[in-house]
Amino acid sequence: MKTILMQFDTDASPSTFDRVVAVDAGADELFSYGGISPENVTGLVHGAIFTRGPKDLKHTAIFIGGSHVSAGEALLKQVVDTFFGPMRVSVMMDSNGSNTTAAAAVLAAKKHLSLDGLSALVLGGTGPVGHRVAQILASQGSTVRVASRTKDRAEQTVAAIRTAIPKAQVVPVATGTEAELLAAASGVSLIVAAGAAGVELLSEATWRTLTDLCVLIDLNAVPPLGLGGVQVMDKGVERQGIFCYGALGVGGTKMKVHKAAIAKLFESNDQVLDTAAIYAIAETLG
Amino acid sequence: MKTILMQFDTDASPSTFDRVVAVDAGADELFSYGGISPENVTGLVHGAIFTRGPKDLKHTAIFIGGSHVSAGEALLKQVVDTFFGPMRVSVMMDSNGSNTTAAAAVLAAKKHLSLDGLSALVLGGTGPVGHRVAQILASQGSTVRVASRTKDRAEQTVAAIRTAIPKAQVVPVATGTEAELLAAASGVSLIVAAGAAGVELLSEATWRTLTDLCVLIDLNAVPPLGLGGVQVMDKGVERQGIFCYGALGVGGTKMKVHKAAIAKLFESNDQVLDTAAIYAIAETLG
Amino acid sequence: MKTILMQFDTDASPSTFDRVVAVDAGADELFSYGGISPENVTGLVHGAIFTRGPKDLKHTAIFIGGSHVSAGEALLKQVVDTFFGPMRVSVMMDSNGSNTTAAAAVLAAKKHLSLDGLSALVLGGTGPVGHRVAQILASQGSTVRVASRTKDRAEQTVAAIRTAIPKAQVVPVATGTEAELLAAASGVSLIVAAGAAGVELLSEATWRTLTDLCVLIDLNAVPPLGLGGVQVMDKGVERQGIFCYGALGVGGTKMKVHKAAIAKLFESNDQVLDTAAIYAIAETLG
Repeated sequence: MKTILMQFDTDASPSTFDRVVAVDAGADELFSYGGISPENVTGLVHGAIFTRGPKDLKHTAIFIGGSHVSAGEALLKQVVDTFFGPMRVSVMMDSNGSNTTAAAAVLAAKKHLSLDGLSALVLGGTGPVGHRVAQILASQGSTVRVASRTKDRAEQTVAAIRTAIPKAQVVPVATGTEAELLAAASGVSLIVAAGAAGVELLSEATWRTLTDLCVLIDLNAVPPLGLGGVQVMDKGVERQGIFCYGALGVGGTKMKVHKAAIAKLFESNDQVLDTAAIYAIAETLG
Repeated sequence: MKTILMQFDTDASPSTFDRVVAVDAGADELFSYGGISPENVTGLVHGAIFTRGPKDLKHTAIFIGGSHVSAGEALLKQVVDTFFGPMRVSVMMDSNGSNTTAAAAVLAAKKHLSLDGLSALVLGGTGPVGHRVAQILASQGSTVRVASRTKDRAEQTVAAIRTAIPKAQVVPVATGTEAELLAAASGVSLIVAAGAAGVELLSEATWRTLTDLCVLIDLNAVPPLGLGGVQVMDKGVERQGIFCYGALGVGGTKMKVHKAAIAKLFESNDQVLDTAAIYAIAETLG
Repeated sequence: MKTILMQFDTDASPSTFDRVVAVDAGADELFSYGGISPENVTGLVHGAIFTRGPKDLKHTAIFIGGSHVSAGEALLKQVVDTFFGPMRVSVMMDSNGSNTTAAAAVLAAKKHLSLDGLSALVLGGTGPVGHRVAQILASQGSTVRVASRTKDRAEQTVAAIRTAIPKAQVVPVATGTEAELLAAASGVSLIVAAGAAGVELLSEATWRTLTDLCVLIDLNAVPPLGLGGVQVMDKGVERQGIFCYGALGVGGTKMKVHKAAIAKLFESNDQVLDTAAIYAIAETLG
């Protein structure tokens, strides 16, 4: 029986990126839909769960993608709510690559640092990827400073992470001024930059003054990069004694995590691959 | 040469149900289109008939689906009208699963009854599935009472069936009141319920009073079911001496008929699989 | 690694014709998109170039199609402009079949005539196919009269051809009147008709008076055909001493060129298959 991956994309055209990865991950057939929302997905889910017998449902799965993470989350909720009893298929949510990228970034940090008890700063921590980096780090026992230009936006993300992980050690920090930035970065061993493309969040001159710093990860691939002095291809390169990772250096691992998650979907019909589940898959690749 | 099935769906998004069945029926490639109407289908049909040579055209076929049977019928007409001479491909129409479901229901009845000369009642007989159940039964020599709440709606369906099958023994009956329902059901050996989801059309107390009844088939899968006391998974279960079938009990056969019809499309390039042709395929599976 | 062809169609529904040919040309996976324009293609191209590693990018390619050649050209430009450095995939443009049809027509002429120094007339020379027939002939050293009902439209096409091929020997001619038509056809060895469907551009009585004529090619498949007396299935048939080709006679070669071009896309990741490149591929099939 062929494996079928149904790609439900919240953008008008289904992502070619996600399609190529699905093909390379070994899905036999790909049903790609664009413009999908909670309002029009129910019939499509019924076609997934009512066609093959219960013991064959693991050969069908759903991938949720698109540019907007909040739209993807609403779609995931509706898809899962449509399932009932054994009538369900496995589903993965990775809008904007947020979960696979965050998992790959944390995996990079873990090569050099013990995550439990680690002190970390996530710049651009309120965006979809930064939010998930902070959430995964917190789930592994790190104390995470979630940074945004203003503290109130950071507080919203911190509250959302605490809802997902009640024991999370997460602190909102503002990085609107150089003094705030220096205070936010003081004492951390890991800094991850997950801000908007083309904005330098931290200069090399500044991070060279940080005495506890061990790992720098920049997830921005478009120049100017997010962390001064870190190169886009860096993959554990030592610069000034700091292990550096650029977006393309993390990208290879992100792709492996993405493919492994797609393959995992077809192992049983009852999986919901969200942030935590995707990081758990990433860890097995470590 | 790969087999190609072009799925033309009258709904905005092409049905995942029909896609899964097409894959499982062995079609190598599936071209799925949503939002197809007589106005925009001609160019798509030209691409089907003008690409492969006449002797290879049997490897390309068209499937017409969607929620609305009348839209599907209009599309089928336009597709067939676009063919000329040997420039044609086989085409199947099964909007809303109407033809395959009706064929499977009649096949179930046939296990217990001789259709020729049979007296049958189709409740919800004016809907797409009920209409086709009545039409197939009439084509096999049954005398069929086509029921609706009011007689005039039933008369329209009866007229349509007589156009398709001039010798059809079909009678319109109203079932708006309990007295009408009792009169309609009196003396029949088979009752098929094909009404709207969630409406009980006949109570167990009532059908237990019918002395000639032999088979009950309920095509509604959503509770409350259409025939009181019949269970959704029933597949020939005897209840009060009556052989009972529920929607899921018929569903397995429907899926077999659907797959067999898809496979049949690729045997030659000149088939039009409508209600009669799909029932003929179903009979070979009997 | 599977080959992936991304079909970007400027029409609302992606062409089934181009899809069937892509399947028959051996592309393993086809990602078909309709309604694509320069405004919404960039993200789709990013998904093509950012997923597979540089050495595997040759397994992904892009096909640009649709009814409107100018829309296809604008899309091709945007796609190519999105590439950078080694981050590119091969791309073919064949809106309305213009390039493959024109290449097949010239290939037919070449069986009987030396193209270098040839004097040719292209009727309907300002349409997408006629334009490309004239351009290919000019690129091979022919002197080409580009005909339209009025000379000013022909002059625009001639200017466009000279931009593509600076040394082109192309002359605009009007064929609005019978006298103009006779003057335009006088002395040519090849006439190609590429006008609108159902319009006879040249009568048999007229072309029988042309003493230098050797080959007639009619690319119109809908009666009345474009060249009186030429049959749609003609493939080098001699009529009155003239080698004649009809649209279906050229169509088989067009299909071979189309398939060969699709296959060629996957040989490297840096090809842009435009008019000249597609004719170069056609020549290897000669």
